[in-house]
Amino acid sequence: MRTRAAVAVAAGKPLEIMEVNLADPKEGEVLVEIKATGICHTDEFTLSGADPEGLFPAILGHEGAGVVIACGPGVTTLKPGDHVIPLYTPECRQCPSCLSQKTNLCTSIRATQGQGLMPDGTSRFSMLDGTPIHHYMGCSTFANHTVVPEIALAKVREDAPFDKICYIGCGVTTGIGAVLNTAKVEIGAKAVVFGLGGIGLNVIQGLRMAGADMIIGVDLNNDKKPWGEKFGMTHFINPKEIEGSVVQAIVEMTKTPFDQIGGADYSFDCTGNVKVMRDALECTHRGWGVSVVIGVAPAGAEIQTRPFQLVTGRVWKGTAFGGARGRTDVPKIVDWYMDGKIEIDSMITHTLKLEDINKGFDLMHAGESIRAVVVF
Amino acid sequence: MRTRAAVAVAAGKPLEIMEVNLADPKEGEVLVEIKATGICHTDEFTLSGADPEGLFPAILGHEGAGVVIACGPGVTTLKPGDHVIPLYTPECRQCPSCLSQKTNLCTSIRATQGQGLMPDGTSRFSMLDGTPIHHYMGCSTFANHTVVPEIALAKVREDAPFDKICYIGCGVTTGIGAVLNTAKVEIGAKAVVFGLGGIGLNVIQGLRMAGADMIIGVDLNNDKKPWGEKFGMTHFINPKEIEGSVVQAIVEMTKTPFDQIGGADYSFDCTGNVKVMRDALECTHRGWGVSVVIGVAPAGAEIQTRPFQLVTGRVWKGTAFGGARGRTDVPKIVDWYMDGKIEIDSMITHTLKLEDINKGFDLMHAGESIRAVVVF
Ligand SMILES: [Zn+2]
Ligand SMILES: [Zn+2]
Ligand SMILES: [Zn+2]
Ligand SMILES: [Zn+2]
Repeated sequence: MRTRAAVAVAAGKPLEIMEVNLADPKEGEVLVEIKATGICHTDEFTLSGADPEGLFPAILGHEGAGVVIACGPGVTTLKPGDHVIPLYTPECRQCPSCLSQKTNLCTSIRATQGQGLMPDGTSRFSMLDGTPIHHYMGCSTFANHTVVPEIALAKVREDAPFDKICYIGCGVTTGIGAVLNTAKVEIGAKAVVFGLGGIGLNVIQGLRMAGADMIIGVDLNNDKKPWGEKFGMTHFINPKEIEGSVVQAIVEMTKTPFDQIGGADYSFDCTGNVKVMRDALECTHRGWGVSVVIGVAPAGAEIQTRPFQLVTGRVWKGTAFGGARGRTDVPKIVDWYMDGKIEIDSMITHTLKLEDINKGFDLMHAGESIRAVVVF
Repeated sequence: MRTRAAVAVAAGKPLEIMEVNLADPKEGEVLVEIKATGICHTDEFTLSGADPEGLFPAILGHEGAGVVIACGPGVTTLKPGDHVIPLYTPECRQCPSCLSQKTNLCTSIRATQGQGLMPDGTSRFSMLDGTPIHHYMGCSTFANHTVVPEIALAKVREDAPFDKICYIGCGVTTGIGAVLNTAKVEIGAKAVVFGLGGIGLNVIQGLRMAGADMIIGVDLNNDKKPWGEKFGMTHFINPKEIEGSVVQAIVEMTKTPFDQIGGADYSFDCTGNVKVMRDALECTHRGWGVSVVIGVAPAGAEIQTRPFQLVTGRVWKGTAFGGARGRTDVPKIVDWYMDGKIEIDSMITHTLKLEDINKGFDLMHAGESIRAVVVF
């Protein structure tokens, strides 16, 4: 079949809207009509050429929602008409990682996904002249139709609006999951969130769900303050507007008459800046502070600290897709949205048509959007 | 009273054996007759002058065992005749850290202890000419008698030999505790231990207790291999004798027909070398590997890695005194020793008199001892 897609033809160039060929789903694969897709920083990272593993031409996009149109042979858990969210972190439920019960990082199709291919090592997308087009993160949601492995589709309820729940395919789950799955924040905790973009705001609403007492947001841009407050932030620090270091400021803010040591119980880096990641670790409480790296750092950048920080009880960890097992957890997060336990609508600041997708990247560059969503 | 002690008069100089004055225990303090004390790398670190927080003159030593001689006012949990192990990590059971139930790093007397003083800000030790001598790590076990806060004494059974259980005051507890308290290693795990000195051997026997399936020891010295094997090591790597990196070697060794990703479930750095700490993190399994820093790094040294290592599920943490709450856990470890669950005797390779304590440091420098113990 043919479908319409925004194709990343080369690094650093705008996406090109075009008709492309889409082959039928093969064994274990599913044809999905994408109804809406968010535009994420990771798409931007790859499109810019900064991603050393970026492949071109490719159909980017990994934050979608849509409807199953057809199933390839052997597909047993989905049928045409099912509403689905594609998962860049699949959940096969039978690989060593899935069976470990210790990680969400399913490895069953990792190798081919990294090569921009379906599990059989080929692509379903091609240019009208026959040139193959790479898949992206196993999702390729910047196309009106895409083919996705069955194990990389979360089946979700049918009354949920595509143009909102698509965001659960990446940003919402990453932020909330980092709090609930990776950090396992408990009621009454004091937490710090570095970077109040889309991920940071979702971390904040995750902390609100978890019952954190103190939710400190840190951002260089004061315009982010009302955004943070809207989702549950209780304190704000602009590092440019304080004397001394942000670490010291956080230690002071978190002291109590009883606890004169100070420090956050949990911290989250949503900036991708390795210097901020260090601050995020070092502002946590001696003895038990946990710092979670969420942001994606530039290629080659390294984090650094004195080992004394760890020996005195701080823990440095990271999260991918919020530690969520996609097929199991994503439908629950959709339920939370529909039940009003989490908020998404106001974070979708811009809705665009596919033709205008490059405008979505411009809005991101300008820092004007929390999330821009393309609706087909 | 007067007692005999080995005094660190200045950085880099041998200890001097001399008579010193020891004042009576004050409120909440206890006079202890030290019966035996181990000589630990941390004593050496301070004596050498490499410890930026080292103070002189001081009575070093923090790995002792002895008998309570007298109690100061207000002491309620100990009485003369009790057998005790001094704790450089006290357990007050009422500070924010103790009450957090998340850390063993009691902070109740941290400030004065760091200054080489008793909790009231003064020293009990002095030269015969009246010059005050600093306490060390709150213990000062290189003296025949010492004064220690009540909260820094673990009461232990009376049938346990002082010249063996003194080692539980530091090395044994640090190594075993890192496995049981900090990493919480589970049955069947695959673990790697970097550095097969005293701490490394105790990590190995902790892993054996925890039921680890694969216990890989890494050391540049092949003479350590039989030592590792004696305590439960199942595999040995000498990084100088393999092709390629030690990380790659460990990843290969830990692969199974089912799990072709490979990597250790847990790793422990017992070297204090920040490059080794990085290897220790990076050789752990994608998705769930936990690496524990035990070794003390040189002043100013920093650990470093790509944040990708954390984002893909590895956890970097550290441990001090094996995460053990001294008054609660040390008596249990003494029981384990007496019940034959752990082995100490063969690790005490040298027994010395106080006059010969500098020989103990020489043996350590030469790598000839696992542990040298001074018996009074
Ligand atoms: Zn994303
Ligand atoms: Zn899997
Ligand atoms: Zn020690
Ligand atoms: Zn305490």
